[in-house]
Amino acid sequence: MRFNRQLASIKVYEGGKPIELVMREYGIAPENIIKLASNENPFGTSPKVIEAIKANVHTVHMYPDDSMIDLKTALAKKFDVETSNLIIGAGSDQVISFAVSAKANKHKKVLTARTTFAMYEIYARQVGAKVIKTASHQHNLDELYAKYKKDGDVGIIFLCLPNNPLGECLDKDDVFDFISRIDDNTMVVVDGAYQDFAAAKDPRKKIDPKALIETFPHTLYLGTFSKSYGLGGMRVGYGIAGEEIMQALYKMRPPFNVTTLSLKAAQAALEDETFVRKGIENNFEEMKKYEAFARKNKIDFIESYTNFITLLFGNDKNSSEIAQMLLKKGIIIRDLHSYGLNGIRITIGTPEQNTKFFEAMETVL
Amino acid sequence: MRFNRQLASIKVYEGGKPIELVMREYGIAPENIIKLASNENPFGTSPKVIEAIKANVHTVHMYPDDSMIDLKTALAKKFDVETSNLIIGAGSDQVISFAVSAKANKHKKVLTARTTFAMYEIYARQVGAKVIKTASHQHNLDELYAKYKKDGDVGIIFLCLPNNPLGECLDKDDVFDFISRIDDNTMVVVDGAYQDFAAAKDPRKKIDPKALIETFPHTLYLGTFSKSYGLGGMRVGYGIAGEEIMQALYKMRPPFNVTTLSLKAAQAALEDETFVRKGIENNFEEMKKYEAFARKNKIDFIESYTNFITLLFGNDKNSSEIAQMLLKKGIIIRDLHSYGLNGIRITIGTPEQNTKFFEAMETVL
Repeated sequence: MRFNRQLASIKVYEGGKPIELVMREYGIAPENIIKLASNENPFGTSPKVIEAIKANVHTVHMYPDDSMIDLKTALAKKFDVETSNLIIGAGSDQVISFAVSAKANKHKKVLTARTTFAMYEIYARQVGAKVIKTASHQHNLDELYAKYKKDGDVGIIFLCLPNNPLGECLDKDDVFDFISRIDDNTMVVVDGAYQDFAAAKDPRKKIDPKALIETFPHTLYLGTFSKSYGLGGMRVGYGIAGEEIMQALYKMRPPFNVTTLSLKAAQAALEDETFVRKGIENNFEEMKKYEAFARKNKIDFIESYTNFITLLFGNDKNSSEIAQMLLKKGIIIRDLHSYGLNGIRITIGTPEQNTKFFEAMETVL
Repeated sequence: MRFNRQLASIKVYEGGKPIELVMREYGIAPENIIKLASNENPFGTSPKVIEAIKANVHTVHMYPDDSMIDLKTALAKKFDVETSNLIIGAGSDQVISFAVSAKANKHKKVLTARTTFAMYEIYARQVGAKVIKTASHQHNLDELYAKYKKDGDVGIIFLCLPNNPLGECLDKDDVFDFISRIDDNTMVVVDGAYQDFAAAKDPRKKIDPKALIETFPHTLYLGTFSKSYGLGGMRVGYGIAGEEIMQALYKMRPPFNVTTLSLKAAQAALEDETFVRKGIENNFEEMKKYEAFARKNKIDFIESYTNFITLLFGNDKNSSEIAQMLLKKGIIIRDLHSYGLNGIRITIGTPEQNTKFFEAMETVL
């Protein structure tokens, strides 16, 4: 059977190893496995979320409220926008797919930094759109602008602020200046999956979705409940944009794209900002330990505005070998070899998890 | 901003009214509202599902197991296929979207019966594929074959067996004979969302996925947990196909497309076939009452192999008016006016719900 042409260039995505698989492969007991690979919240989620899920478990036979009005109302209040500025996705991933399907095609390219969130490229390939990237791994606005200008047929530019999997973050003023020079027929997506971490660390990094979309009608802001809110397994994210973009995204949204319990969980998560704040505080307290560890061991690291840190090794070390040795000790981190980097990305864990990471890392270095 | 050309022809989907909305609009107390509009299981879901969700609620901060191996293993056992023959979607809807994205495009059309599951057309339009339909509302294999032959560039044929929203079902032997005459570069999708109802009522309707995909490598079978298993709110469905189609579908699947709790719920649902069987038994017992009611009131109906029944009115009645009058009484059913039919589709409810429907319907006729 022949399939659409673009499938020839698509490789099937392989995610991080689930804990169960590591258990099986190395015969390690689950309580001795530490997963610092997927930037999940090491403290779990808010008790209010757990309660909300339990309270709604008897409604799972009914289709979700497809208007999602309760969650939209809560998000609209949080960001001081209208509910009509909001779309909810099964993770912000899905909102990326709506944007790419609406705007990119085999003639309209997708422009990104060289090393950034993998889904931009995956969704672009699914619709047969070409992806162009800067030479620099980290976001470089001059390079992005030069690529944009030279190419002439860029449909979407993705800015991941802060950037996953590297951790760096552009300043808000520089981002606004950049966007002001992009024509209004090119969509600029500001992926704020880790924005609450960046904004807490340095106010210059903070991007307010309302100011963004009111200043630039050609922008789309993305947020997620998978990170600081601790809902990675529930798959809830959102997009914020003006009327024109929103109308296009809704045309690409399948009905009932978010489960009932996910909607209820996200709503409850928004009601416990204390849980989120404490998690972010722990994150940056613990990150100092990672920075100290790296300095002590003469390992380069990228200053991070997220809940993970990226260590970059010199020629004397091999990131894949280090990842493999850690795995055998029950510690799962993300090797960045597939991104063309000799480095690893580690999610900042609880103090106990981080101590165990440092102990294990000392033995494999 | 200009968007991809196909968006011009897409209308935003509007689902059935959620109970909360009807409450608000008509000031009806929730306990007095009966929703027989979305073919949900009127008995809810299995207690084993409720337990499984509660038992896993503390894992929601972690991404789902993207291999979905536990649910795939359970489904592989149920259908006597390999786990590699299975793909899990956020509802079988999502598997439809994978198939359409992989195989249909602006040159390769989608062929369906005139009145069938709306998502075939919605996903086709999203990728810019043209949809062609038979003149008959119900599935007619001669008409489908004639359309297929005449057009010459059909990428996918959808057979909804039994058919939603009309309820009729083709015989398995006729379906196999039809598929044997379709060239192996055209994908034939057998949507079995309501197959367990049909198979229970009449063995001639039963399509075994294993026999289907082994006989015809160009077929894809779809199943869902939203109907008899009572998991409409959890969004879990699946596709079963041979290696070639499966490889293409996986290229279009986004990672983590099903939530952790949905995977656990579906797995638990498979362990309680008694719950499913009892629901199906109630369904056909109660359906007899609907048939008797229709005959008594001289209303035409389509013999149904599903968990709903479609009533068709003559010129003396108007389906939209009847739906509106029922709504004011707190009973939500589906008006088929938008399908070009003067009829309504009613989900078979519990005995109590059905009695209330008959009472209300008597007053509006």
